[in-house]
Amino acid sequence: MHTRPGVEPYTTRTPRVVAARRLQRRRERMQERRFLAEGPQAVREALAEGVVVELFTTLEAASRYADLVEAAERSGVRSSPVTDDALAALAETVTPQGLVAVCEFVDVPLAEALSHQPRLVAVLAGIRDPGNAGTVLRTADAAGAGAVVFAGDAVDPYNGKSVRASAGSLFHVDVVRDDDPLAVVERIRAAGLTVYAADAYGAQDLDHVPLAQPTAWLFGSEAHGLPPQLADAADARVRVPIYGRAESLNLAAAAAVCLYSCARAQRTEGTSR
Amino acid sequence: MHTRPGVEPYTTRTPRVVAARRLQRRRERMQERRFLAEGPQAVREALAEGVVVELFTTLEAASRYADLVEAAERSGVRSSPVTDDALAALAETVTPQGLVAVCEFVDVPLAEALSHQPRLVAVLAGIRDPGNAGTVLRTADAAGAGAVVFAGDAVDPYNGKSVRASAGSLFHVDVVRDDDPLAVVERIRAAGLTVYAADAYGAQDLDHVPLAQPTAWLFGSEAHGLPPQLADAADARVRVPIYGRAESLNLAAAAAVCLYSCARAQRTEGTSR
Repeated sequence: MHTRPGVEPYTTRTPRVVAARRLQRRRERMQERRFLAEGPQAVREALAEGVVVELFTTLEAASRYADLVEAAERSGVRSSPVTDDALAALAETVTPQGLVAVCEFVDVPLAEALSHQPRLVAVLAGIRDPGNAGTVLRTADAAGAGAVVFAGDAVDPYNGKSVRASAGSLFHVDVVRDDDPLAVVERIRAAGLTVYAADAYGAQDLDHVPLAQPTAWLFGSEAHGLPPQLADAADARVRVPIYGRAESLNLAAAAAVCLYSCARAQRTEGTSR
Repeated sequence: MHTRPGVEPYTTRTPRVVAARRLQRRRERMQERRFLAEGPQAVREALAEGVVVELFTTLEAASRYADLVEAAERSGVRSSPVTDDALAALAETVTPQGLVAVCEFVDVPLAEALSHQPRLVAVLAGIRDPGNAGTVLRTADAAGAGAVVFAGDAVDPYNGKSVRASAGSLFHVDVVRDDDPLAVVERIRAAGLTVYAADAYGAQDLDHVPLAQPTAWLFGSEAHGLPPQLADAADARVRVPIYGRAESLNLAAAAAVCLYSCARAQRTEGTSR
């Protein structure tokens, strides 16, 4: 057990808990370069990546997930018992499963991500909904993307909802944050990738563009798509064909179709890279 | 304008409004075989399908969407002015845009849907989240599916969240409700379709199964997947390949990849039907 005799569980008023709770706000996260990950799956992934600074657990969770608490202690991570109330205050879900970790930011500069020569990249430019952003990150990971770029005013990848929707993928791929989407596109193209703008009204049909080469996909906001200037910077605007009567696909579905189409073509058609 | 002189807008206490609000509950919907659709897009689609029984509008919306109010009146649909409060009570979103329609159920029996010889069918078996169900319905429509079956204890397609997430697709494809998923599978196969169970742990890889023939996809619950008995009834259990480190895809993303893979294969490889 991680509780030493005489150590009372921290409450909502314990300064360490109060400080950690502040990380629920974007401004605090940016200042501290730390964020919160909750639940056993995310905590396990964060521990494996070596980015956990402190682990808060209820007494019940410390016993149910003793392996995680031991893994934390072996790595020299401070493991702190908290009351159920304090855990509930740290967590943002109704059923937080008793574990919340304070983690260091995991993002890397774009140059570093590109140095790993990814063959598939997703660029989120202006996605506003954190759940959508996390879902696209998860889908990109599943499709084998090496990097996911949160560009411009896209949602913060460390937003609690985004972290949860990513289901651990935040820790799997090179996540990049960059304020300048146009510069991102230029540097990705300079690294040898084809850049496609996913655009419901794009001139090119997904079924008729080359997909086997190293490719980056630009995804825009749910409501407004990509800014014209950014879509123009891509090598092509590509639409997922609508075979039925729907007006469009939602963002997460369109991203899944685009990313998997590339993943499959890269594996079945072969590439030079 | 649809307001006749002397007609006061209905309030939350007007019996017609009270009666319509009851349709927010599943039991009332099933009894009345009616549901609510809100916002200009859904109302437009419902009017085009001829299923609107009554249209409630705020004064502002009646003027902004005068074309819809006129279309309703041309079809002999009762158009009723309501106060902003009454509209807010009828709608389930924060920004309902001033329009709510009472609609007749649109679902058809499975036999009727199969008589249209669909080449792509989605069967939702046990999907619990209405937003997910509506999203899969929308994606199936976009991929050209002819029918979407809500089977067993899947969410109600007339749930407000599901209707909104479907973005009109509820009115585009043959929607079927059926209590018996196993019987649905048997009858779909008897109609000549291959039946694939989407299963994260399926033995067959999506990239290596035939997809050009008429096909039905079974999708299970977000948390538990398909019941084993139902997955066994399919011709194969098919997994979307995971190329990266994600454990799985979320349901809507997996459905998008499966349905579009078939849609593309059916168009590029050709079929006998």
